[in-house]
Amino acid sequence: MNLKKLEFEKLIEQISTLYREKKYSQLKSILADINPTDIAVLFDEFPNEQRILLFRLLPKEEAAETFVELDGETQEALIHAFSDTELREVIDELYLDDTVDIIEEMPATIVKRILRNTDAQTRKSINTLLKYPEDSAGSIMTPEFVDLKKDNTVEDAFKRIRRTGVDKETIYTCYVTDSSRHLIGVTTVKELLLHDYGDKIEEFMETNTIFVNTHDDKEIAANFLDKYNFLALPVVDMENRLVGIITVDDAIDVLQEENTEDIQKMHAIMPNEKPYLKTGIFETWKSRITWLLFLMISATFTSMILNAFEDKLSALIVLTSFVPMLTGTSGNSGGQASAVIIRALSLKEIDFKDIFKVIWKEFRVGVLCGITLAAVNFVKIWFVDRTLLGMSAITIQVDLVISLTLIIEIIFAKMVGCVFPILAKKMKLDPAVISSPFITTVMDALSLLIYFWLATMILHI
Amino acid sequence: MNLKKLEFEKLIEQISTLYREKKYSQLKSILADINPTDIAVLFDEFPNEQRILLFRLLPKEEAAETFVELDGETQEALIHAFSDTELREVIDELYLDDTVDIIEEMPATIVKRILRNTDAQTRKSINTLLKYPEDSAGSIMTPEFVDLKKDNTVEDAFKRIRRTGVDKETIYTCYVTDSSRHLIGVTTVKELLLHDYGDKIEEFMETNTIFVNTHDDKEIAANFLDKYNFLALPVVDMENRLVGIITVDDAIDVLQEENTEDIQKMHAIMPNEKPYLKTGIFETWKSRITWLLFLMISATFTSMILNAFEDKLSALIVLTSFVPMLTGTSGNSGGQASAVIIRALSLKEIDFKDIFKVIWKEFRVGVLCGITLAAVNFVKIWFVDRTLLGMSAITIQVDLVISLTLIIEIIFAKMVGCVFPILAKKMKLDPAVISSPFITTVMDALSLLIYFWLATMILHI
Repeated sequence: MNLKKLEFEKLIEQISTLYREKKYSQLKSILADINPTDIAVLFDEFPNEQRILLFRLLPKEEAAETFVELDGETQEALIHAFSDTELREVIDELYLDDTVDIIEEMPATIVKRILRNTDAQTRKSINTLLKYPEDSAGSIMTPEFVDLKKDNTVEDAFKRIRRTGVDKETIYTCYVTDSSRHLIGVTTVKELLLHDYGDKIEEFMETNTIFVNTHDDKEIAANFLDKYNFLALPVVDMENRLVGIITVDDAIDVLQEENTEDIQKMHAIMPNEKPYLKTGIFETWKSRITWLLFLMISATFTSMILNAFEDKLSALIVLTSFVPMLTGTSGNSGGQASAVIIRALSLKEIDFKDIFKVIWKEFRVGVLCGITLAAVNFVKIWFVDRTLLGMSAITIQVDLVISLTLIIEIIFAKMVGCVFPILAKKMKLDPAVISSPFITTVMDALSLLIYFWLATMILHI
Repeated sequence: MNLKKLEFEKLIEQISTLYREKKYSQLKSILADINPTDIAVLFDEFPNEQRILLFRLLPKEEAAETFVELDGETQEALIHAFSDTELREVIDELYLDDTVDIIEEMPATIVKRILRNTDAQTRKSINTLLKYPEDSAGSIMTPEFVDLKKDNTVEDAFKRIRRTGVDKETIYTCYVTDSSRHLIGVTTVKELLLHDYGDKIEEFMETNTIFVNTHDDKEIAANFLDKYNFLALPVVDMENRLVGIITVDDAIDVLQEENTEDIQKMHAIMPNEKPYLKTGIFETWKSRITWLLFLMISATFTSMILNAFEDKLSALIVLTSFVPMLTGTSGNSGGQASAVIIRALSLKEIDFKDIFKVIWKEFRVGVLCGITLAAVNFVKIWFVDRTLLGMSAITIQVDLVISLTLIIEIIFAKMVGCVFPILAKKMKLDPAVISSPFITTVMDALSLLIYFWLATMILHI
């Protein structure tokens, strides 16, 4: 069922009515027909007691799938209401990586209850997964994968999948390991289906396997899944033993998270993983205030520059009128360059060795943009600001100072905008911390210096 | 093989040497062991004639997979060098959606040659796919999927997959259709493997299928694949007949493209799909100049405001010194809010009905940020600008005007930053066109008005 907004509201209506009238078997059959992801969204619209009852009406597997999609608060409330048996049933149906994600967000008492309700083997796996550093490939992998031996036949493989597959997050990529669990090959169910029952795995498995290490950044893993179009990526430990896999749905989540983080950093916000409406006021304030403070205080330089040229400004006060336009334009030009470069770096389209190519390109783009804007501006100031708006203090020399400033500042802005992120990356900093607001602040000061230097030279003030 | 940078350079070395020494069989075995995605990257390092020879050394299937990963120019050069037989071999191995992507980028003569070298059936499918609007789900789907009938048994299903699966992009999700090709259910190879050979598909297929229409935006399709963790999403035509599927790897590409576009728009750049280094100077200039021009000309308002208050500025020239800090801070504050809201809109975390929740939240965050910045600024101006830097014209009243301006402008900036993107979306515009530079330009004017209004009131100038 594709839930459009209207259908969604009708469905909530319908469920509420059935709930009030205690028509549980009808409720049950309606819920069974909705995708778990949509049920999780629906649940947001109901109070806690109702949610628990609705949850209990879900078929076992669907219940677990819905549980994973709920937010931390709702999960916590549900666990509080669960009997130990119910909790065990849900946990049993979950994939291990999802269990670990949930555990990481729960308070200690609930974590203890979850661990008490899992068998020793699962508990051990959970504890191993919990130990991987945050943001590492190990922290998002699942140890549940199909492993085969190279002398298995296709028939053996299918038997193994039929026997153990129900608990695996994906069965479509199968990993071939040797007796010490080293990864020696990969095959897929598609390959298995296209070969004869008697064929041995080693005859057709791929041996040029691509993998990551448990301690690699999860972003590297996600990029590999994207780049190589994999459904799952194997993860090996320090001794090169296969310990888990990362599935493509988790890779998409990582990529989307990284994109959100990049956008936040590029706009002078400290990254925050929570959805907008679930973030508190103080948390939001905290993520935004640091950079605002830093940038505000950095603006002391522009104040100092303007103060130093106070005499010249009083001599020709019309110069002041164009300060916001000049600083604005240089900030925008630099922001464009830095955004494009930060994105290209994060998509791995460029790296440090391209720095001169990039500078040369941005220089030429800067010259083109500078000349275009200066030409338009020169004409506009003369006919709009001077003639139409009657700023009689504008002479042809003043117009020239403003337009020349534009050309020079834009070229500088493009240079600063492209070089800073590449250097940041080289210094192992996140290039996205070179936000547009930061470039803007640097360019504000630089633009004013260019402006007053040209004013002094051309207007002799 | 995981290609790290150093290995990569060694590999190029090695291939070049083998090529010079004409050791083709050795070259062949090295190439066979590299992932096609990596071969495509390697090819960038070789001149055209060498590439063609190397390409001819690849096994047939790997050749096609490599071909897909190459950029348009290289593909064109290769096709020029291909004999008709070679071209046919490559095209035969490609999935239809990839063929269509390639055709869309090629000049007419090459398109004709490709179509001449495909069979009538394929040609018909290609022509159908080419007719879907750009950015529609139809334009990125492939018509090659596994379709089953509801009274098929598991055994029938596996037979069908074995017989036809080799040409399907994915076989793992199987679609159940009725006699008029309407989609009535979905199942997976995992389900098939976990059921007995004699079981009928209709007994266990999922009937609450989620699908998109050929004319839906491809972004909707990609979001569905992300949200529901699917490996493939069915696409139906206007008569609800199943006509294709979209696979998860294509969905990731769409999501990444959309993210790049959002980042470009948020920084006043007209979206451009090409990788940075492959975009020409004029193209880059064209994508950046429109907004720069528009924003520069919009800054006429700030010039007018400053000009109107010229008298007051000459009376107290020190007020000028804080203009860039004030406009900068309001631009940054507004940019933060708009970035967060644009991202939340594109992740579907919020929509129009949340507008008052959002405004109320941003108002409170604005008050908090405003008070914090104003307090720090008040102290900083007094002890740094006045005492340390000797700007003796600063009185306690001047300091107050600046600090009060900060509070008011930040609250306004947060409001403008959050309301504009939501309204844009409501008016069916892309919220990301409400770029930070645009917010900055609006806030520049607004901040100056607040500043001079407060200056007039408090300083009586």
